[in-house]
Amino acid sequence: MLEYSDLSRSITQMEYAVRGPIVQRAQELEKEGREIIYCNIGNPQALKQKPISYFRQVLALCEYPELLKEKNIFPSDVIEVAKKILKESKHGLGAYSESAGFGFVREAVANFISKRDEIDSNPDSIFLTDGASKSAQSAMRLLLTESNDGMMIPIPQYPLYSATITFFGGKQVGYYLDEGNNWKLNKKLLEDSLAQAKRSNIRVRSIAVINPGNPTGSVLDYENISMVIDFAKEHNLTIIADEVYQENIYNHNEKFISFAKVLDDKKIKDVTLFSLNSASKGFLGECGHRGGYVECRNISREVSEQLLKLQSVSLCSNVPGQIVTYLLVSPPQKGSPSYELYQAEKMAILNELKAKAEILAAGLNRIKGISSNPVAGSMYAFPEIKLPKGKNDFQYCMDLLEKTGICVVPGSGFGQRPDTTHLRTTILPPRDKMEEFLKKLEEFHSYYCASGSEV
Amino acid sequence: MLEYSDLSRSITQMEYAVRGPIVQRAQELEKEGREIIYCNIGNPQALKQKPISYFRQVLALCEYPELLKEKNIFPSDVIEVAKKILKESKHGLGAYSESAGFGFVREAVANFISKRDEIDSNPDSIFLTDGASKSAQSAMRLLLTESNDGMMIPIPQYPLYSATITFFGGKQVGYYLDEGNNWKLNKKLLEDSLAQAKRSNIRVRSIAVINPGNPTGSVLDYENISMVIDFAKEHNLTIIADEVYQENIYNHNEKFISFAKVLDDKKIKDVTLFSLNSASKGFLGECGHRGGYVECRNISREVSEQLLKLQSVSLCSNVPGQIVTYLLVSPPQKGSPSYELYQAEKMAILNELKAKAEILAAGLNRIKGISSNPVAGSMYAFPEIKLPKGKNDFQYCMDLLEKTGICVVPGSGFGQRPDTTHLRTTILPPRDKMEEFLKKLEEFHSYYCASGSEV
Repeated sequence: MLEYSDLSRSITQMEYAVRGPIVQRAQELEKEGREIIYCNIGNPQALKQKPISYFRQVLALCEYPELLKEKNIFPSDVIEVAKKILKESKHGLGAYSESAGFGFVREAVANFISKRDEIDSNPDSIFLTDGASKSAQSAMRLLLTESNDGMMIPIPQYPLYSATITFFGGKQVGYYLDEGNNWKLNKKLLEDSLAQAKRSNIRVRSIAVINPGNPTGSVLDYENISMVIDFAKEHNLTIIADEVYQENIYNHNEKFISFAKVLDDKKIKDVTLFSLNSASKGFLGECGHRGGYVECRNISREVSEQLLKLQSVSLCSNVPGQIVTYLLVSPPQKGSPSYELYQAEKMAILNELKAKAEILAAGLNRIKGISSNPVAGSMYAFPEIKLPKGKNDFQYCMDLLEKTGICVVPGSGFGQRPDTTHLRTTILPPRDKMEEFLKKLEEFHSYYCASGSEV
Repeated sequence: MLEYSDLSRSITQMEYAVRGPIVQRAQELEKEGREIIYCNIGNPQALKQKPISYFRQVLALCEYPELLKEKNIFPSDVIEVAKKILKESKHGLGAYSESAGFGFVREAVANFISKRDEIDSNPDSIFLTDGASKSAQSAMRLLLTESNDGMMIPIPQYPLYSATITFFGGKQVGYYLDEGNNWKLNKKLLEDSLAQAKRSNIRVRSIAVINPGNPTGSVLDYENISMVIDFAKEHNLTIIADEVYQENIYNHNEKFISFAKVLDDKKIKDVTLFSLNSASKGFLGECGHRGGYVECRNISREVSEQLLKLQSVSLCSNVPGQIVTYLLVSPPQKGSPSYELYQAEKMAILNELKAKAEILAAGLNRIKGISSNPVAGSMYAFPEIKLPKGKNDFQYCMDLLEKTGICVVPGSGFGQRPDTTHLRTTILPPRDKMEEFLKKLEEFHSYYCASGSEV
């Protein structure tokens, strides 16, 4: 019989806090009838965000093309797009696509990138995957060859990166984000991290950057991205740019700038870039459909072929997810029948997220002992929490859950400077729940710090 | 810049013939306007098999629940099932599910197994995955810990297994299937394989069995399965039973018997079993939806938790695929409004597959120099082809493609005894194409053997 002791350390040592013990405990409590406010994961539709009608209308038609015969149900542009998808895909949603994903979807993604950044983009360098997590895992598989191969990842980071490094048996090389400077990257901190890795005989081959930031909520500016690219060039590092929150910008002073754009501006041809995008985030929030893609730049045909082979072993990413990705990058155009509703739904979601980002950051900063940078982007805040000596953030978050039903993830699940403690929360609960969340957190925090004891 | 020479050998050495160079060449030829008969992959809906209406109706409603308001489009049971799914899933298709997949789907799978085999099945030991390929990869990740860990796989095998062993850095330990006995497993051949692995200091930890067989088209009987289980028990091997073709049985003398059933009959509690099923095969053929599951038996809670953690890093399998899996295991019941149509569509597909299985095997055996076992199950034939000295099956299949537009996969992509050559073809082309396929193959084969030269 297969025993725990038989398992590879690359599995048993892997950690993935956003679905870890606190979340499992929350699910148990919920089964017992407790109301839980889930702030552990960026899963908007689980927190009452409505799907965008246009996407679901097209999907329904593609799933059951007999509906094309019905009159007066669907807008004419929805019908046209569904017909186009059924024609371009040749066999609809039920057949495997090409391993890299449908050609017409990859072309649409390339057009989207070209238009967004005013740069060229090659459909043959785009791979459709089951969510961006799978894109990251595939790219990381290419980058971790030997056991002393290291990847630089931000501290704090999204634990997909640490878990996948462990899974592929590589070395995690953390670089600190600068909490005092809105969690931006800092050249000195990057150099410190690299130098320390070299002292440990780690061969650092790549760097992951998450922009807008998860869990930090930061948005990087042009100079910051340019600095990272120069750093990567100097040290021959491949860049993984996790840009899944590119639509989630809430601060008027910030805008999303892609690594692809800056790389192109700088005319750098020898830094390989994998950039990720997803249908799960933005205003879409179609997490369950698992749609995403990776665009590769400055990659040789030989390497690209290996990535294709990797994809081919699982045959292809799920086809409805590919269609959601298609719609993500080719939304209804102004003047088309669906445009007004689409735009209204989109802006309602983005405005609500923006309002909640502000409410959350302001509310957190009102709590004595808790301080948060502005939530400029993504769907998260990562406030520092001052705890009594001897207390740790895991126990704090577990006690918070037991006492209040609030489910957040301790900072240790993402990484943080020694002797600091944080938590990560999403900005996703509906506004009334957000107010409740802040009130309960304030009460709990003051109680926790005053009592100095376990709850 | 990332170079080919930087890549891990676990990637560059991986082979996956069913989407290999011959298929890539076929796609090129198709772009140039050539008509290709794709027999390389079990992708029924790409070869004109129609989706089952019931499944697509439920999916359309779940994608766009506004359709529930429409009168006279959907049968009442479709509406009820869609409502049940929307209720049980809590947030519909757009949110991440639990990492293992929706609880109600896992319960339905457990009920299906219980009913099929008259045995107990535990929903907590069932994991929903993006197709069965991902199930196999997850199970194999648990079974390949060190570089001398071996997995026994059939020769010929489905190359997912060899590719994944290479990917995880394990050792492939082939055991021959007995071509002279309808490709069944043979105890002596298993023992020979194991003994040879031990001589090479390989620690053999598991055995994969594909039943019904891919690429062989064989169906294993009770005694054969029982023998394999005894062999696994004797040598402390975990079994991966790839049972994705369990509905694809064409020979009246055969029936599908699951490893779970025989394991339960034998009251064996110390042989771990992972059994796989898929929504891509059977009569459904919903390959694009990437739905599948693995059921684990005789597995400890600790090991099961590690499998759950593995799943959690990709958050969850795609939700539409989970719904297809739900429908696969809980089809419309006799007396319900959708039953007659469902049953008619199902039987039409299965009868057509059965007819084509017979036409193909008989047709292959009529060609001088080609001989095939009966296609008792699955979707493939793996005939032996006698070639002139100095010719290999790869070149044969490539020339066949160039000359006739027929796309099949050489036996070497699956493994075969030295000095034998085979090809794998699906039984999926429509009947008229199947006749054309046989005629063209016969002409080509006689030409190829007579000329003894490159085409």
